[in-house]
Amino acid sequence: MNLLLKNAQVYHDHRFEPADLLIRDGKIEAVDPDLSADVPVLDARGKKCLPGFLDVHTHGGCNVDVNAATPEDIRTLAAFFASHGTTGFLTSVLTDTEEQTSLAISRITRAMGEPTGGAQVLGIHLEGPFLSPDYKGAMPESLLRKGDAAWVRRCQQEAGGAIRYMTVAPEVEGVQDLIREFSGEFTIAIGHSGADYATAKQAVANGARACTHTFNGMRLFHQHQPAIMGAVLASPDVYCEAICDGRHLHPGTVEMLLRCKGLDRVVAITDSIQAAGLPDGNYKLGVNDVVVVNGDAQLANGGGRAGSTLTMDVALRNLKQFTSYTLEQVIPLLTENPADLIGLPDKGRLDPGKDGDFVLLDDDLQVAATVVGGEVVYQA
Amino acid sequence: MNLLLKNAQVYHDHRFEPADLLIRDGKIEAVDPDLSADVPVLDARGKKCLPGFLDVHTHGGCNVDVNAATPEDIRTLAAFFASHGTTGFLTSVLTDTEEQTSLAISRITRAMGEPTGGAQVLGIHLEGPFLSPDYKGAMPESLLRKGDAAWVRRCQQEAGGAIRYMTVAPEVEGVQDLIREFSGEFTIAIGHSGADYATAKQAVANGARACTHTFNGMRLFHQHQPAIMGAVLASPDVYCEAICDGRHLHPGTVEMLLRCKGLDRVVAITDSIQAAGLPDGNYKLGVNDVVVVNGDAQLANGGGRAGSTLTMDVALRNLKQFTSYTLEQVIPLLTENPADLIGLPDKGRLDPGKDGDFVLLDDDLQVAATVVGGEVVYQA
Repeated sequence: MNLLLKNAQVYHDHRFEPADLLIRDGKIEAVDPDLSADVPVLDARGKKCLPGFLDVHTHGGCNVDVNAATPEDIRTLAAFFASHGTTGFLTSVLTDTEEQTSLAISRITRAMGEPTGGAQVLGIHLEGPFLSPDYKGAMPESLLRKGDAAWVRRCQQEAGGAIRYMTVAPEVEGVQDLIREFSGEFTIAIGHSGADYATAKQAVANGARACTHTFNGMRLFHQHQPAIMGAVLASPDVYCEAICDGRHLHPGTVEMLLRCKGLDRVVAITDSIQAAGLPDGNYKLGVNDVVVVNGDAQLANGGGRAGSTLTMDVALRNLKQFTSYTLEQVIPLLTENPADLIGLPDKGRLDPGKDGDFVLLDDDLQVAATVVGGEVVYQA
Repeated sequence: MNLLLKNAQVYHDHRFEPADLLIRDGKIEAVDPDLSADVPVLDARGKKCLPGFLDVHTHGGCNVDVNAATPEDIRTLAAFFASHGTTGFLTSVLTDTEEQTSLAISRITRAMGEPTGGAQVLGIHLEGPFLSPDYKGAMPESLLRKGDAAWVRRCQQEAGGAIRYMTVAPEVEGVQDLIREFSGEFTIAIGHSGADYATAKQAVANGARACTHTFNGMRLFHQHQPAIMGAVLASPDVYCEAICDGRHLHPGTVEMLLRCKGLDRVVAITDSIQAAGLPDGNYKLGVNDVVVVNGDAQLANGGGRAGSTLTMDVALRNLKQFTSYTLEQVIPLLTENPADLIGLPDKGRLDPGKDGDFVLLDDDLQVAATVVGGEVVYQA
């Protein structure tokens, strides 16, 4: 698709500059003042143009639960995400039965082959099943198991290589070998884990590159047992997912994480579930029943928080509000950093040659329009 | 005193360079290759010359307990510290009765007026009495009390301005006002505290500039309640004391602290007690009985750890061993950073014009000689 965006404040090299942005055949051709071309024009009227948000960890929204989603559900979800500024996402498959996991993988893979009319499905995130029962969160304990490289290999074959990200607990038997085997193939995160410091550091040495919903679902720091939390903060190259909904992380925790890790190693995620974008009520998250009250999703069995109802646009506004950083400083958390984390060099930045994915925000940081590959997929 | 150090590897601008170092009238006059002068010569024989270590938090050593020390005891302590490479220290007065605190202040102040023949007494650190009973450590609970600016003012008058550092708990009544009142006059640290995030951040906004034995004696981080620990990690300007004895802090904790705070904001301290440099046995720490087993000092009443038996030279070797950083990178923790923290611009760096205080280390980082103001106060 071709598109000329006029009169925008384009986010480029970590600052906003008045510019036009020309997209041809879905790719950014130029970012310059006073561009003209014989293509459809979108007038930004001075609004901010950001790289589209990339969400590497979501279980659903708008009544769609990724584990149970049909290809049509995924298109519905993709349109919902686009309305919140997201132009690409990984579908996070929660630990489930082998059969359901296979079904989810095949449906997601099918959906990836077709245009969604909304945000792009960038691949699959497997959250489990090699996780700690002690830090299971919403993972069904009976389905957690030892590291099984053959199973991962089968899933990846079924997915046609679409698994781009996986969360594992490094202390679970067989997982360190699994990290070594697959870390060159897709990105591995550690989480849902009670690992001690040395075990978590070993996972990083073996190739783990991220931490899943940092501080949530993991053993916390003690000065005598710094544990996985300490190891993640002590590993400068490791990316840290952060759920910036004001519930999972106190605003001061977000500030602390940014100060400790730096602006280039924190990745804003939603970890959103079926209930995102919907009123309070009863929902599903994989095999779990979930109750949402005042937007807070909790397991119906009293087992604690179960994902979020966050969307990426809200995450951006929260980051601005929770921390001492400027808008320009926190934008990479939703754009460059997730692109770098899962290895998508054509995403996350508005440079010539990259994908024509962007979001227009008004002065209140509300989404005015979302464009994927030069196609306007959402307008407020 | 005058001294010419020949054939050294001088630590300057964060690296070692072959150089000589000329001290005249106690001040560094030049750091250059091939210096000559008609003054006493010390041949370093290729050893490393570092700025003398500065310990801003110590309660004693070699059988001397600061709270009960006579001026002669303090000279004994100063010689002991010099034998471990320390050229300057603050005497940390533990929370005690008003009478004993006054006596300690007057004796320390008297000792400061005379040459010690060892490390220099740089001033007084008051650890308490405005601390949290819940995080009292070795502080006697009955002597802890509300913030009392008038008492601090009297102490500072008795000390003739020698109080350079004070540890307070920001949640204790009256302490925030006290921080505001005194933070322009001497350095204030927060510690022995269960403060929540906002209260600790308020203390920093009011002028607190450091954290006392970070992670020890304080409320730890939780993602929903980041607390004083989170606030300290989220405040880039705040210095963090660290007891690098391998007991108070797991080696991974030290690595994490350095990664989070940066090399210019961590201050290595000993928090050493009377037992430092002595065999296991029974000792005092202020009003407390302490038992030392395998070098580990614990309150005799079972109340937990009570200071350390660490010395600064061991702290340096531990930092090298515990962390991924080079010797050159960790030296500022014992030199520049404490000088900057307590505002001693003439200390901590081997630049012309600064005080002629240095330590010579052999290849195993053992202390070969210590020089204070151009005077050799220790030779192995």
